[in-house]
Amino acid sequence: MELSKIYAPIQENLYKVEDRLRLVSKVDFAYLSELLDYSLKSNGKMIRPALTLLSGKFYNYNLDYHLPMATAVEVMHTATLVHDDAIDNSLVRRGRSTVNELWGEDEAVLLGDYLFAEAGALTASTQNLRVIKQFAETLKTISGGELNQAFYAFNLEQSRAQYFHRVAQKTASLFSLATESGAVLSQAPEESIQILIEYGYNLGIAFQIVDDILDFIGTEEELGKPIGSDLAQGTLTLPSIFILERYPEDNPVKRLFRNKEKQDEIKLAIELVRNSSIIQECYQVASDSCAKACRSLKLLPDNASRQSLMDLADYITHRKK
Amino acid sequence: MELSKIYAPIQENLYKVEDRLRLVSKVDFAYLSELLDYSLKSNGKMIRPALTLLSGKFYNYNLDYHLPMATAVEVMHTATLVHDDAIDNSLVRRGRSTVNELWGEDEAVLLGDYLFAEAGALTASTQNLRVIKQFAETLKTISGGELNQAFYAFNLEQSRAQYFHRVAQKTASLFSLATESGAVLSQAPEESIQILIEYGYNLGIAFQIVDDILDFIGTEEELGKPIGSDLAQGTLTLPSIFILERYPEDNPVKRLFRNKEKQDEIKLAIELVRNSSIIQECYQVASDSCAKACRSLKLLPDNASRQSLMDLADYITHRKK
Repeated sequence: MELSKIYAPIQENLYKVEDRLRLVSKVDFAYLSELLDYSLKSNGKMIRPALTLLSGKFYNYNLDYHLPMATAVEVMHTATLVHDDAIDNSLVRRGRSTVNELWGEDEAVLLGDYLFAEAGALTASTQNLRVIKQFAETLKTISGGELNQAFYAFNLEQSRAQYFHRVAQKTASLFSLATESGAVLSQAPEESIQILIEYGYNLGIAFQIVDDILDFIGTEEELGKPIGSDLAQGTLTLPSIFILERYPEDNPVKRLFRNKEKQDEIKLAIELVRNSSIIQECYQVASDSCAKACRSLKLLPDNASRQSLMDLADYITHRKK
Repeated sequence: MELSKIYAPIQENLYKVEDRLRLVSKVDFAYLSELLDYSLKSNGKMIRPALTLLSGKFYNYNLDYHLPMATAVEVMHTATLVHDDAIDNSLVRRGRSTVNELWGEDEAVLLGDYLFAEAGALTASTQNLRVIKQFAETLKTISGGELNQAFYAFNLEQSRAQYFHRVAQKTASLFSLATESGAVLSQAPEESIQILIEYGYNLGIAFQIVDDILDFIGTEEELGKPIGSDLAQGTLTLPSIFILERYPEDNPVKRLFRNKEKQDEIKLAIELVRNSSIIQECYQVASDSCAKACRSLKLLPDNASRQSLMDLADYITHRKK
């Protein structure tokens, strides 16, 4: 199913989020305005703001709160991408040059800081202390996860459990902030809030696993960025962990991690994954997480948004970019 | 007057802020814990948390709120230093190696992000929406100011007004957040809050001007970092602007900015400033700002904290580090 169909119950409001994002760029300092405009007009899938809006649709949906919060999660997501790209020295994302490539790494760091602050200001404008607190905790969790990834770069001694923990920190935390905030701001009962947190968390895990799979089997054209970039950064993801488990004696990941110069091993690792059942197994893990995400949704009121959340889980496992 | 005497009315509570800072480092992930511990145990002057505590002493001082907020401003300050050092590739601060020097630039970026989030979480724990909102706005202002500085690096076409605007963004904004939050959290009347905002703002301007002077006339030993670093980064500060105004035809700043290779010009600029009345004039601007800061304080209740705020203004203009 296409995203535009899944987003139907909130599509009009998602356009309003895009309007709000454009407003963020309207600042006096022309240079900052240009950087904001470029980074926020990045043609992403808008999954996180959609989650906030959809999660708000079960009880008292209120645009005064849901609109700034949906904008906040997208701005926060953008901030993390801007910093990630600067750190990884990535040149291309979503088919466009990165901020660090165009304006420099220092500028990307400062722009990311500004975006984090903007996301905080948008969150604060909801005037909901629980959501504000959770926003700050989520940013702690995400940067802790990124530091964990940096610390374990090119380290072969990493378990599946460590991988899942890092994915939970880096990605699932923001997905569950998106759903939790949508629910809390609609004054949902605590039980429903917990269901939506659980949904967002498991969806986020699945989303990241698929991301990690696509880094092996996608095409640069579809992804809008080079493939094999995780291995190039020394980041062990699920397909690589499967390689290590399956060929413990010797394998391309092991050879690359022991000698970063051996960049050709990346291609060999990609081939190995593509020509084995590893991909199917990784997809199975992602589907299981999506199934877990959807299971509890059945306890929520039956409406179009609930169906959209179900369809989104399906979309996420089948996406090509 | 020594800082320890100025801090007398709040010294015990400032120790508690230090305890809270140590608590921030207590996290599960040992690597993050080490980085936090190092960056927060940096032996700074604790001026910003002192401002929050002192500003809270005029009405309903409440440690439940003032303690986390004072900790928040210090953590936020630390975050900005960690990012600044990473961006400037600074190797030494306060006589110690910087985080970027010891652990790498990427790690410094992520640590700074974590610290911003921690500061946000501490601020959120005050449960005061005005303070939370101002916190986010201040971070926007600071990063906007830093971007402004990066954008105008090695640009000779900068007025005094631009310099003051940047100083207001980079430094005064956090000083006035410190005083405003202290006042707001003590439920001070709006008039008193405004007085303390004004005080913090003008004190911050003076503080930064003195910082910029010390970069010319200080010693590496006292400052704990190399002198002349502003010029090395291409940052035009008040002493440099005075050079440009006084010797419009030709001067070392002009020669350096036109050709970054000419690093010897930094020494010449320092000599020029030291052997002229420029320093006196810069100090005069700083004193004027301090006087302005103190003037309005007289409208506040007369207590030991008010005297400390007055003395702090005096300390700031006379400090050597």
